This record gives sequence, C-alpha cells and structure tokens, in this order.
Amino acid sequence: MSVFDDTHISLAHGNGGRFMRELIEDIFAKHLGNDELDINADAAAITIPENTVPMLTTDGFIVQPLEFPGGDIGSLAVHGTVNDLAVSGARALYLSLNAIIEEGLEIKCLDRLIASLGHAAKQAGVKIVAGDTKVTPRGHGGGLYLATTGFGVRDKNLNLGIHKIQAGDRVVVSGPIGDHGIAVMLAREAFDLKGDVKSDNGCVWPLTSALLDLDGLRFMRDPTRGGLAMVCNEIAKTSGLDIVLQEAAIPVREQVQSVCEILGYDPYYLACEGRVVAVLSPEDAQKALAIWQDILGGDGAQIIGTVQEGSGQKDAGQVILETPIGGTRVLDELEDDPLPRIC
Amino acid sequence: MSVFDDTHISLAHGNGGRFMRELIEDIFAKHLGNDELDINADAAAITIPENTVPMLTTDGFIVQPLEFPGGDIGSLAVHGTVNDLAVSGARALYLSLNAIIEEGLEIKCLDRLIASLGHAAKQAGVKIVAGDTKVTPRGHGGGLYLATTGFGVRDKNLNLGIHKIQAGDRVVVSGPIGDHGIAVMLAREAFDLKGDVKSDNGCVWPLTSALLDLDGLRFMRDPTRGGLAMVCNEIAKTSGLDIVLQEAAIPVREQVQSVCEILGYDPYYLACEGRVVAVLSPEDAQKALAIWQDILGGDGAQIIGTVQEGSGQKDAGQVILETPIGGTRVLDELEDDPLPRIC
Repeated sequence: MSVFDDTHISLAHGNGGRFMRELIEDIFAKHLGNDELDINADAAAITIPENTVPMLTTDGFIVQPLEFPGGDIGSLAVHGTVNDLAVSGARALYLSLNAIIEEGLEIKCLDRLIASLGHAAKQAGVKIVAGDTKVTPRGHGGGLYLATTGFGVRDKNLNLGIHKIQAGDRVVVSGPIGDHGIAVMLAREAFDLKGDVKSDNGCVWPLTSALLDLDGLRFMRDPTRGGLAMVCNEIAKTSGLDIVLQEAAIPVREQVQSVCEILGYDPYYLACEGRVVAVLSPEDAQKALAIWQDILGGDGAQIIGTVQEGSGQKDAGQVILETPIGGTRVLDELEDDPLPRIC
Repeated sequence: MSVFDDTHISLAHGNGGRFMRELIEDIFAKHLGNDELDINADAAAITIPENTVPMLTTDGFIVQPLEFPGGDIGSLAVHGTVNDLAVSGARALYLSLNAIIEEGLEIKCLDRLIASLGHAAKQAGVKIVAGDTKVTPRGHGGGLYLATTGFGVRDKNLNLGIHKIQAGDRVVVSGPIGDHGIAVMLAREAFDLKGDVKSDNGCVWPLTSALLDLDGLRFMRDPTRGGLAMVCNEIAKTSGLDIVLQEAAIPVREQVQSVCEILGYDPYYLACEGRVVAVLSPEDAQKALAIWQDILGGDGAQIIGTVQEGSGQKDAGQVILETPIGGTRVLDELEDDPLPRIC
C-alpha cells in the first residue's frame, strides 16, 4: 500500500492510523529522512557542539499560492527559519516541522512541496528531526500551512544586537529588495499582470557567516514581513537613533519597481526571503560590501544608508528616505494596510 | 493603542506592522512573558544543564471547538508537546509557539486561549522562548491553529524504547481512557448528546518522572491520536510481540462507555491528553502502580495487560483484547475511519 493509491488528501490521512502512517512514510520520511529522524519516536535526541550557545527560533508559513517563481512553501519553510538563526549569527543544525494539510490537497502537489523542503534542508545543512502532520477539513485551510522551529548554535563570544548600533554606522543590504513580494503577487494572477520576477527565497547563512569576524558588525536582520522599512523602523524605535536611507542606493529591480508603481505598493515594505540588512561601522561596512559582492547571492549588495543621532528620545527614532532629487520622506511603521500573504 | 480597541482579528494583525505589534504585546507577550522571551529577537539563546541529552519534539493542534470541558487549544498545545518529551523521560524546558489565526476570531477569545496556554506553561515549568503569528483570510482556518516545539533534557543514562520490551512485561495505564475524545465530541453538540465528561488534558511529567528510577521500566507513551489501541499496535508491530489486554481491567468511565455505545465508537481508539501507557517488568509494574496511585492524576491507574511471545515474526505482532466473558477480539491498526479532530 502507498499513499499514492489515493490522489488527494482525505481526513483519514490525519487520524493516527494506517493511512496516516503511509502518508508519513511515503512522503515525509522519504524526502526528509536522515539518521536522526525516527518517525516512531516521541522526541529526538540532538547533539550540541561544545563551546556554543544553543538558540531556538520559529516561523509559520501560509503563503498563497503554494508554488511561485523562485520557490514554494516547502523551501520557504526551511529558509525562513534557518535565516532567523543566521542573522543571529547562529548556524542552523536541526529543524522540527509541522504540517497542517487541508483535505482535498493533491497528493502529488504535497509530494513536490515536501521534496522541495527536503532539498532546501539538505542545501542549508540542517536536519529535520521531529515532525507532526494534521489534516483539517476542506474549507478550513489553505492547502498546506507549515511551521518550522529551528535549533542552532552560535559562538559564545558573539555579541550582536540593536544596542550595539551607534551614530555613524552604515546600513548595508545584500541584494535587490522586494523580489519575493512581487513574485508571489504576480503568481496569484489577481491583477492581470505578468512578469518574470523570481523570489529571492534562499538561505542567508553563507552571507551572514562571512561577516561574523568583523569587529564592527553590530546587527543583522532578514527583511521579511514588513520589508526593509520595518527592519529600519525597529532599529530606529529601539535605539532612538535615526536611519537615513539614500533612495538612489537601494537596489530594486526595474520590474519590481514597475509593478509597485502600477499597484501603488512601496517596495520598501515588501518581503524578501533571501536578503540580509546589516549595520556595521563605516570601515567594516566597506569590508562587508566587498565580502558580499564576492559571494553568490550577495553580488547585488549595496551600502544604502547611515545611522544618525536623532532627537535622542527612545521611540522617537525615524527612518528617513532621501530621494534622488534632494527631498526627504519618512518611512513610517506599517499601519493597517494589509499586504498579501507572502511569507 | 491596544489590540482590544478592535473586537475581532483582521488581516492587518498579521502584516508585520503596528497592529501586529499590538497583538503580540497585548496578548502573547502579556500572557507568555518570561525573562528569556524577547519579542524583538530573531532567535532566543537557551541554556542546557550539564550531563543531559537535549531532545526536540513537535506537535500541531487543530481541535474544534477551541474550548471544551477540561481544557482548550491553548493548554492542549502545551501539554501535547510537554507530554511527548515526558514519555521520553525528558523534562521540558523551552517551547516555541506558532499561532495561525483566522481573520474574524474574536480578540477576547484569543486572549482567553493564550492566557490558558501561558498558565499551562507555567504549571508545567516550561518557558515560551520563541513565537510567530500569522493571520489567514476568513474561511481559510479554524479560528486558531497552534503548533509547539518542545526542547527538553533527559538523563544521559536513561535508556527506554520498544526494543527493551520483552515477553512477560506488563502494560500499565495511568487512568481512565477516552475522556478527552468524548469531552470534545460532546462539546461539538453535533449528536444532541449531553454529558459532563471532562478532558483529561494535563501534563504527565509528574507521572513519568516518578517511574524513571525503576530498572524494569521499558517504554512509555501518551495515547493521543489513535488512543490505547494504536500505542499497543505500535509496540506489537515494532517488536513482533503480542499484547494481550484484559478488557475488564481497562479503566473507562461509565459516561464515556455509554457515549461510545450510542455512537458506535470504540473507546480504545479515543485520544487521551493526560494519560500514560507504560510497559514494565512484572515486579516494577506493581511498583509503578503503587507510585501512580499516590500521585494526583494517577489515582485511576491499572495494570491492563501482558506482553506475550507472538508468532515471532516482526510486523506480525497483534493486540488481543480478552473480554470479561472469556472471548477475544483483535484490536487492529486504525483504518480509514476518520475520528473527529480532537487534538
């Protein structure tokens, strides 16, 4: 017997019995199997390298559509969580995976998505050691929702954080922003727009790990939900410092810019899934730029702004965009303007 | 501003902006806050006690209705994961939490559920150190889905597993089975049945940790999805041994039994959320029984069966129920008989 004897997911695939066992064996274990994944165990023992600080992070994924140019919910579920560890300076070692599958999902589609997840995990060097699947009735899901929790380790002496940022520091971004947001939006075909923008969906550990030896590295973050604008706002609100961004220096692909203009979106709020925003001392920002431009995935890196003394009041820090014609515009915290589900 | 200025969840509560920050601060951080939860951090550093084996496990929760006699999806999301660690002999230390919230959920209801989750975590001695929330459009969820990943530690010398089970061992259950399944079913009011059965939803670490010093302890599991029958089937299929259960010895509440008879359910397949099935040597089974009967939550414990040499073939192990009138019935692996969503 095999789960492929059926064509679509039924509630029986979630009932704890034979159908569920086949689903887990024929799809999840097949694509995610490794020597530490025991599908019959309640909990998995893991190994932690000496002299490291263990770190946990978690992320949920509800992107629609499930597959889009440059990726799918499976690879996204690996990268989203691995990247949260990576920007903390931690190398991801293990992942747990929750799948909430909607009755009626095509089994071949689930197979593709979990294969993609397994491939992304392998590429990122992370092992799936625990998992759970649930099946929701038709009309109570989005085909597939995923949640991953990542367990990683960082060096004991690493000290990064917004508290380390000072006036004069530079803001660097590892590549063009907004590709993921626009790729997903176009894949929905809701606006009758076509384009060949691909999501930047990818693992950023090669980028972040390359900067860890720079003494002037203060802080890193991946600009996902809320985009570059929200990362900068978080820095500004937390530190009380202002972030001044040079619009002309921020890399945005022409196609992304055009779609944004047509739809009235601001690219600075669009999600990326394979980019890093880093804050460094001026000298090390130059070094970081050179390092990234030599790495696959970092060739579009740019220094895009400067940290400045603000009003000095905590919570009063602002993100200011200087336009090419010399004007300025404040990039506020996102209000109740729902962006599509893109992560 | 507060999230309680609104009455229901909107898509804006998931967009990464101010509304989402208010939701996280006013509900999640309020109820789950602890000194290691930093809602602004990408990943949380955790501490692992020396001479322990770290363990990971994960579970998803889609129960309907969200609140039921004896519990709710919030407390369930703590106990489900803490218990998977507990039956592995591991004390839960940290949890990550994923919430997938459906647009339209009443904010007061979410507040109650997360308060309950926070309370259960405190009771179980586990800290929530990482979290993520997503909002799905109306009609693409079940109000609230949760996923938790648990990180715990067990003693380095502990060695439990199905491989340790031998013919002659006894099967012990910590209390009446099926309470959770029936409580949730009645809460749905789908069958026009009434009753005051409460879910057994609870943390089993006090029960499992009390047995860890018994040399004759072979294996423990919590009978959730698929119930007692599936736990016994897993043992039988994995070991090739037969499990012979005495129907008269299996504790089932009268009300649970009656509802099962009316609806044609078999109580042995119903989910529990606060029970443990343990396999021990005959001598230590008696000791375990005495230990459990002295612990709150274990006072209904019973020795319910014996492990016997089967045909000797792996995968051929059977679960045999001996009825009070001297007959026998095989409890097969659950087939495509979808039980309601009760965990």
